Amino acid sequence: MSMKSWTGNFFEDFAVGQEIVHATPRTVNTGDVALYTALTGSRFAVTSADSFAQALGLRSAPIDPWLAFHMVFGKSVPDVSFNAVANLGYAEGRFLAPIYPGDTLSVSSTVIGVRENSNGKTGVVYVRTSGTNQARETVMQFARWVMVAKRDPASVAPEPVVPELADHVAVADLLAPTLDMAAYDFAASGEPHRWDDYTVGERIDHRVGITIEEAEHQMATRLYQNTARPHYDAHYAAGTRFGKRLIYGGHVISLARALSFNGLANAFWPVALNGGRHAAPVFAGDTIHAWSEVLAKDPLPGRADLGSLRLRLVVTSNRPCVDFPEEDMVLDLDTTVLLPRG
Amino acid sequence: MSMKSWTGNFFEDFAVGQEIVHATPRTVNTGDVALYTALTGSRFAVTSADSFAQALGLRSAPIDPWLAFHMVFGKSVPDVSFNAVANLGYAEGRFLAPIYPGDTLSVSSTVIGVRENSNGKTGVVYVRTSGTNQARETVMQFARWVMVAKRDPASVAPEPVVPELADHVAVADLLAPTLDMAAYDFAASGEPHRWDDYTVGERIDHRVGITIEEAEHQMATRLYQNTARPHYDAHYAAGTRFGKRLIYGGHVISLARALSFNGLANAFWPVALNGGRHAAPVFAGDTIHAWSEVLAKDPLPGRADLGSLRLRLVVTSNRPCVDFPEEDMVLDLDTTVLLPRG
Amino acid sequence: MSMKSWTGNFFEDFAVGQEIVHATPRTVNTGDVALYTALTGSRFAVTSADSFAQALGLRSAPIDPWLAFHMVFGKSVPDVSFNAVANLGYAEGRFLAPIYPGDTLSVSSTVIGVRENSNGKTGVVYVRTSGTNQARETVMQFARWVMVAKRDPASVAPEPVVPELADHVAVADLLAPTLDMAAYDFAASGEPHRWDDYTVGERIDHRVGITIEEAEHQMATRLYQNTARPHYDAHYAAGTRFGKRLIYGGHVISLARALSFNGLANAFWPVALNGGRHAAPVFAGDTIHAWSEVLAKDPLPGRADLGSLRLRLVVTSNRPCVDFPEEDMVLDLDTTVLLPRG
Repeated sequence: MSMKSWTGNFFEDFAVGQEIVHATPRTVNTGDVALYTALTGSRFAVTSADSFAQALGLRSAPIDPWLAFHMVFGKSVPDVSFNAVANLGYAEGRFLAPIYPGDTLSVSSTVIGVRENSNGKTGVVYVRTSGTNQARETVMQFARWVMVAKRDPASVAPEPVVPELADHVAVADLLAPTLDMAAYDFAASGEPHRWDDYTVGERIDHRVGITIEEAEHQMATRLYQNTARPHYDAHYAAGTRFGKRLIYGGHVISLARALSFNGLANAFWPVALNGGRHAAPVFAGDTIHAWSEVLAKDPLPGRADLGSLRLRLVVTSNRPCVDFPEEDMVLDLDTTVLLPRG
Repeated sequence: MSMKSWTGNFFEDFAVGQEIVHATPRTVNTGDVALYTALTGSRFAVTSADSFAQALGLRSAPIDPWLAFHMVFGKSVPDVSFNAVANLGYAEGRFLAPIYPGDTLSVSSTVIGVRENSNGKTGVVYVRTSGTNQARETVMQFARWVMVAKRDPASVAPEPVVPELADHVAVADLLAPTLDMAAYDFAASGEPHRWDDYTVGERIDHRVGITIEEAEHQMATRLYQNTARPHYDAHYAAGTRFGKRLIYGGHVISLARALSFNGLANAFWPVALNGGRHAAPVFAGDTIHAWSEVLAKDPLPGRADLGSLRLRLVVTSNRPCVDFPEEDMVLDLDTTVLLPRG
Repeated sequence: MSMKSWTGNFFEDFAVGQEIVHATPRTVNTGDVALYTALTGSRFAVTSADSFAQALGLRSAPIDPWLAFHMVFGKSVPDVSFNAVANLGYAEGRFLAPIYPGDTLSVSSTVIGVRENSNGKTGVVYVRTSGTNQARETVMQFARWVMVAKRDPASVAPEPVVPELADHVAVADLLAPTLDMAAYDFAASGEPHRWDDYTVGERIDHRVGITIEEAEHQMATRLYQNTARPHYDAHYAAGTRFGKRLIYGGHVISLARALSFNGLANAFWPVALNGGRHAAPVFAGDTIHAWSEVLAKDPLPGRADLGSLRLRLVVTSNRPCVDFPEEDMVLDLDTTVLLPRG
């Protein structure tokens, strides 16, 4: 019998400072864009139309930054979270440069923390993951931490290292693409609301729901070459605590981002993933709704034409968000996005 | 609480002469083409193979005109029919120019009629919708009318205006692309039948059925960035008269057009949407079949190599069409298509 | 009533030596690539990343040879197997040249054998099918045989002709693309195992399972423009011996090939389809697993940098493959693939 097939890394396989080059670089293409639209219904003009993007000075419509995120995340799964018991959190995520159809993403991670749990069966692994394009520019970076099973409960715990991670990405660290915002077309973008029109504490019910089918989330997971078995292997899923397939949390992020168009159509460019928590599992057949709250509002240093909003995006399962519920929550995401001023 | 999110226009929001620029222009790409093939199984050679299209003098395989139609239609939904109770009809639809991967579609509509219903709760809105490409050429135009809810039953009815719409597009108004029909390859196209071989009154059973899954029609609706909730929001759909999700009527048109390849493989270029009626709802799990009848047969003015057929396309649900049924009908569509002569 | 629509060929319609040009040439594009990834989750680097392929000297990431196979196969279905009772076997399949996005595939078949069955109701038809690109280079060729219904049980049996087909493609007949294997990146490819590391008789459990949804296999079938009704017409399928829709066997091949990445990540280039048997039907909801066995190991003549493995790929339904089962088998495939040496 061969030992060539992969069983994934266990907690013991991670050490602080370890660098992991993840397999299978990926050329993103317009086919990925079309599928992302079909899966999410996203309507942000900048990622939908070359004309809109080119008026802003971009080469063409860039890939949705969240589509790129899922591809980068997906490549880290076989090495980082194939044996994960839970995805615990994100921090210090930054979208650093537009990614265009034809660009090739390569992904690597550095282990920045390990801490065995007191039960001796699992541990928490912290990694910082980077996506680079074919010109070796870093286009994305984020930290995440996962609870990973130990191979052997008797193995000795490593020295615990818990990295200090920022509560949120500082405004000074946000990177905006070079853009000619004078050409921003508010008829094409779908709403008149500028950065100036939003206030801290404002809450927006995105109103419309979206129902997720088994085939849809499986196709999303595989499109991202994410190998996490609970999402597409019903035999394996039957043995988990949920007893059935679980929807990839990133698919929920993308659906909610698409829903947030309704009220945030001009929040056209995500620049930071400050944090996030998948509060409860989502299953096929569930209908999700979303609401947003403006957590902070900052001008972008040196830019009179762009402002940033730090947004809390809350997603519920099978419950509309007209009353901004804290119950039935499946996702609580903290991101920063850019909007036109003026 | 924010009022920034969209609740759609109500009957009172429409006035004759009003121009609406619809949001989110869309660059159509080969990813959309692949998805359209995967969703419909379409086999028309001109939209499948660059070689076939280029032999005819086209730049490359154009986008299926119905794919473009759904994108144009979809963009009008948030403004025109988000609060529609029913889609009532189409008229004067013309496909005016081939659309290629890389082209960007922008969409606008003009309100051409309004008429409140006697119940005081709804009204009919008539619009003429145009799709233009990045060179500002109009590539498609059609009229449609929808029944829209009133915001306030007590609001005063507007002066009724009902536009005169042609029973069908006149042959003189059909626009054919410039084509070198001598190079039309009947082995590649799949059938030997020319325009000359069809007779008025001829009926064709397209024989094969196709079953629609929930994930498929949801992906189609979202691919077209069509925001009509009954198609993908099961929570909302549960409160409608159907109690469940309803398949976008345009998806049924495209499936039936794909089925019609069997007997009409050389009806390669749709030029007009004369009219149409979604006679009954279609739901996931239904299997549709289709049959066609030749309503009229006209040479194309000034063209010895192309002829037009006006076709009735009838679609049934869960019933084969060997006996050309008028029962179990879900769609009754009136289109004009071009075929090679010779 | 029109006789224009197609009912497919019956056994009587085939004669040895007959050439059939199949309809609907197809330009393969990056949209097809994205959908193939979404349907299968394939992670082979050479078909995922332009950078990886270009380092080897290829123009860009080629289309997965199995994606091309399904398109070529699909085009032959309306003429060869629309009335097939069973797909019986494959032989002498060779992948002859890389196919790139933008290439157009045209397909034709030659009838190489016919043999009526003793029951007088069906017969076996043998064809050799070729796919060519727009430069008229043959990019793929394979033989297959199917059991086809007779139109009329009373028709006279033809002279039986059963072609001699090789047990497997000889190593001397394998065609490798021109490749610069020195640039093969084992970090990007996902595993360190070279051709030299495999031994004849070695068995590999690919471990992970994959569950198939109705929408997924229907989309695959239609993406390939495969018209075989049992896969997407539930009304028709209800009247078959299975009573429900049957998953296209080629979809199972592609899923298993994608699963085989785990243990065979460097089996990067399929060169031969030696034979195969769809041992049992697969239905929506089934979870498949796969294991491989190395049947033979040969250096590639004149090439010190590439070696070939002849592999048996066994796929099971609803049963993991940790014990390399011969039971619950749905596919038993015999292929030859290339791996880097070194």
